[in-house]
Amino acid sequence: MPELETVVREIAEEMRARPDRGEVASYIPELARADANAFGIAVVDREGRVVVGGDAEAAFSIQSISKVFTLTLALGKIGDRLWRRVGREPSGSPFNSIVQLENEHGIPRNPFINAGAIAVTDVILSGHQPRDTLGEILRFLQFLAEDPAIGIDEAVAASEQRTGFRNRALANYMKSFNVLENPVDFTLGVYFHHCAIAMSCRQLAMAGRFLAHNGRNPATGFSVVSPERARRINAIMLTCGHYDGSGEFAYRVGLPGKSGVGGGILAVAPGKASIAVWSPGLDASGNSHLGRIALERLTQRMGWSIFG
Amino acid sequence: MPELETVVREIAEEMRARPDRGEVASYIPELARADANAFGIAVVDREGRVVVGGDAEAAFSIQSISKVFTLTLALGKIGDRLWRRVGREPSGSPFNSIVQLENEHGIPRNPFINAGAIAVTDVILSGHQPRDTLGEILRFLQFLAEDPAIGIDEAVAASEQRTGFRNRALANYMKSFNVLENPVDFTLGVYFHHCAIAMSCRQLAMAGRFLAHNGRNPATGFSVVSPERARRINAIMLTCGHYDGSGEFAYRVGLPGKSGVGGGILAVAPGKASIAVWSPGLDASGNSHLGRIALERLTQRMGWSIFG
Amino acid sequence: MPELETVVREIAEEMRARPDRGEVASYIPELARADANAFGIAVVDREGRVVVGGDAEAAFSIQSISKVFTLTLALGKIGDRLWRRVGREPSGSPFNSIVQLENEHGIPRNPFINAGAIAVTDVILSGHQPRDTLGEILRFLQFLAEDPAIGIDEAVAASEQRTGFRNRALANYMKSFNVLENPVDFTLGVYFHHCAIAMSCRQLAMAGRFLAHNGRNPATGFSVVSPERARRINAIMLTCGHYDGSGEFAYRVGLPGKSGVGGGILAVAPGKASIAVWSPGLDASGNSHLGRIALERLTQRMGWSIFG
Amino acid sequence: MPELETVVREIAEEMRARPDRGEVASYIPELARADANAFGIAVVDREGRVVVGGDAEAAFSIQSISKVFTLTLALGKIGDRLWRRVGREPSGSPFNSIVQLENEHGIPRNPFINAGAIAVTDVILSGHQPRDTLGEILRFLQFLAEDPAIGIDEAVAASEQRTGFRNRALANYMKSFNVLENPVDFTLGVYFHHCAIAMSCRQLAMAGRFLAHNGRNPATGFSVVSPERARRINAIMLTCGHYDGSGEFAYRVGLPGKSGVGGGILAVAPGKASIAVWSPGLDASGNSHLGRIALERLTQRMGWSIFG
Repeated sequence: MPELETVVREIAEEMRARPDRGEVASYIPELARADANAFGIAVVDREGRVVVGGDAEAAFSIQSISKVFTLTLALGKIGDRLWRRVGREPSGSPFNSIVQLENEHGIPRNPFINAGAIAVTDVILSGHQPRDTLGEILRFLQFLAEDPAIGIDEAVAASEQRTGFRNRALANYMKSFNVLENPVDFTLGVYFHHCAIAMSCRQLAMAGRFLAHNGRNPATGFSVVSPERARRINAIMLTCGHYDGSGEFAYRVGLPGKSGVGGGILAVAPGKASIAVWSPGLDASGNSHLGRIALERLTQRMGWSIFG
Repeated sequence: MPELETVVREIAEEMRARPDRGEVASYIPELARADANAFGIAVVDREGRVVVGGDAEAAFSIQSISKVFTLTLALGKIGDRLWRRVGREPSGSPFNSIVQLENEHGIPRNPFINAGAIAVTDVILSGHQPRDTLGEILRFLQFLAEDPAIGIDEAVAASEQRTGFRNRALANYMKSFNVLENPVDFTLGVYFHHCAIAMSCRQLAMAGRFLAHNGRNPATGFSVVSPERARRINAIMLTCGHYDGSGEFAYRVGLPGKSGVGGGILAVAPGKASIAVWSPGLDASGNSHLGRIALERLTQRMGWSIFG
Repeated sequence: MPELETVVREIAEEMRARPDRGEVASYIPELARADANAFGIAVVDREGRVVVGGDAEAAFSIQSISKVFTLTLALGKIGDRLWRRVGREPSGSPFNSIVQLENEHGIPRNPFINAGAIAVTDVILSGHQPRDTLGEILRFLQFLAEDPAIGIDEAVAASEQRTGFRNRALANYMKSFNVLENPVDFTLGVYFHHCAIAMSCRQLAMAGRFLAHNGRNPATGFSVVSPERARRINAIMLTCGHYDGSGEFAYRVGLPGKSGVGGGILAVAPGKASIAVWSPGLDASGNSHLGRIALERLTQRMGWSIFG
Repeated sequence: MPELETVVREIAEEMRARPDRGEVASYIPELARADANAFGIAVVDREGRVVVGGDAEAAFSIQSISKVFTLTLALGKIGDRLWRRVGREPSGSPFNSIVQLENEHGIPRNPFINAGAIAVTDVILSGHQPRDTLGEILRFLQFLAEDPAIGIDEAVAASEQRTGFRNRALANYMKSFNVLENPVDFTLGVYFHHCAIAMSCRQLAMAGRFLAHNGRNPATGFSVVSPERARRINAIMLTCGHYDGSGEFAYRVGLPGKSGVGGGILAVAPGKASIAVWSPGLDASGNSHLGRIALERLTQRMGWSIFG
């Protein structure tokens, strides 16, 4: 087995040099300003060691990666009753598709497509003030990452508030089926803001540790969720974490993972490591192009695939 | 860790006694004759030990489980060129849906829905005689299971030949997009027959060993496929192996698996075991009801989930 | 040919007595208060004679019938450029479907499904204040019907403003494709209000005269639109005027017509008459149950079908 | 009103000269051999006068126009029971779409899309021999056109038999829902052959007379169908006769019509004339490009639109 440090360093070097970098997301205007040349990686192993490469300390918009943490919070609040309001099957559709909602009575296919994550946000909000709910999500991430400096990029949130018509369509559509309980603007306000949380690869890999270690922080032993729940969240990440590229990610990388259109990916090697990568250029399915390749290299060289 | 023998015995006893048994498939008339009370399980561990419970020696129609082995053969024949003719994303649709084909120019979403498996069969056939191709598939299974007694249930094959109008629709539809190269009747003939192969849980678990052990027979060390290919087949089984219930299976069982409407499931615990279960009653997604529950028990008690 | 007065009276009597009355729309709460026993009919012939039956003077919510008049206004404003923003094919989908929008880049299929009518409203609004635009639509109807008493039922408008989540979804969805130019709330405000215009059968039949007579008021000779435009609006009413029941209406009634979920239908017998019927109970496609039957009787007895 | 002879002559001259001629259908190999420069027109008025222009005597493959006549025959056989097996709504889909079938349990939307016409053919076949049924269809056309020379182009039929995989898919799909009663090959055999009937514009316009004149041959007074049935067939032609271009045809031409991929269109001006045009180049919806333009000219100049 090669040294993790060596592997991470070589991956960062390769990714830095590659000419193919994907397309930076433009559908949220503020995200279009990201640097296509950026690449970062951070790996936290079971001993709590953090190995980083490239722009691992630079904060980026985590976007849909936040959905892993809001799902965790919503399950903590209402447990399996959550599954009455959102499914857990891959959708076979793009991240912002509304067709599936019409065919299935407004119930989103899974918590990681936009519609599903909006429904999950509505569960966390549940009658509270948007500001309070957003604070709760932010504190949860700060706690998991052991870093109180994590915050929201207000420019990104405002940009999405102004232009997020498709998410507004999804939310109103679900509201028409009574899948959302709170005022649409409240739910969307929280949703847009938690997607606009900015984190570095280091912070993100730290926050994901509990998923790699049976629901616990391996350093402190503190339990975040039960082992069964950690496994199940990982399962949903594997089948649904990359929108309509989830099969491809499983095939090539072989780890549970969740991507965001900001170019980040959080991946989990159960029992071994929590991993975050970031590169703003996306592939056709809306997932980080170099991020996926970097993770493919990492699992191959470290033998971390969950598939053997 | 409990004894595997104890776990398997207790699962067989529980499954034998449960009143909820699902619905026996009726869409192939011959399959409707299966005994809803049957339940079998067989586990082959890395040392080659076979632990069985219930009706583990009774032969049943493996149906779509054959698709794992035809995929393996097709990859052996043309490698990654296969992916020009079939995708590897979950479909978000029932096993026999044709909608997806119309939306995606006749290219099936993955090799485990019916359309995809027909396209894979067409690749194996590739200009040969149906009889010869079918012989090749059968010999491959006999070799993997180390059992020359494995054969085809001709009554099931004939029943499907007479009534398989929906599969005939899928095949002709793909033919109209030039996704199939052979005469439709040739390809379907091979497809209907390899789905009609009859195997016991013991034979099936034996045949699946290479997927659990890096592509090798762990007893003999003989390599069937490369470690990478074994991992990738497992990944496709995880994301696509249970039709529109694949997310549910990953969530509850946490193993790569492939089900068939005959009530069988082949599951793979990488590095640990190859597992086959059988109970003819199906759930709403067309997967064995008790088979899935049995596998859920097994992975929980043995700690075999790939998700931590 | 029977006397029109006799036919209208007998139709009103039959409809008053029938036990099958359809289901009053409940999706806008305020509409659910309509009296299922109501039935009205008004026919204006080419000489300008008005023949009425039943509750022909009672005002009801015209709902989607307003779309005929907003289409006329929008064509008056921008002519055939309108067809860049909305199609003119039957949709094969329910009135509030969003699936078609996703498949066709946010361009609604025709101006008579909800999405299409919202896009048409956006064209009329075109940078003006909602209040002014609404005034323009209202004055157009008052002018056509020669009745300044026509107004908006504010309770219905407010009810739809509060609950119209699905229309809000459609509008935001189109906005995400830049099909709408004005703020979504402005466009929807005008849309909800023009759907809430209340008219009697008499007023509606008067307003529809220009469509029956080559674009002119047959009494005054005053031209509203060109003969070609009148024909074309009639053609769209025939193919698209009854949502997913348009084929059925053409088959049974044989006249261009537009229905609303308030239970009204405006129908046009070219060269012969403008007709309005009203009965609040709807059929499965959302069209007035007795209204359609009444029109079927009328065209059969008067020989007014456009199909021979 | 201009002279019909003058109008027809001028239309034939304009169409002969236009450079835009559409694309000759290639999906049936044999049809691809048609001459893109051909154009023919024939009009039979209520006095039985036949006015022709261009290549009005040249035989072409009527293809889907045959569906008007098979619908008439099927209604003659089982009356309104036909509507249990096929709908009468526009489909909003291309002529050979299978998506709609999956969504609606194998019941085709209307008798003029391919699936619907195959179901109608199955009704006519109804246990008879394909050869006899085909003879019946052919004799019906010979009788209507008063021309025993009408026959089948066997090369076209054979070409479609060899390559009609998509129609084969549609038929098998419906068979899986028990919408077809006869062996799929029998029904398709009759379908492929009646689509391959070859007729000239003159013959086709003669055959369509009964639809323009209340179900009767205006010359002999002989009744083919009841007036109501003639109106209803016209209504279905109007809403469904041009696949996903039916709205466009109604909007521009304003007559009931049925097109075929051979480039022919049969149109009906109720009470006035039966019209056939032919030009092999098709538009994007699969309808004759110049045929539609020619009919638009004709109705405008003669004032024959049914819409006023």
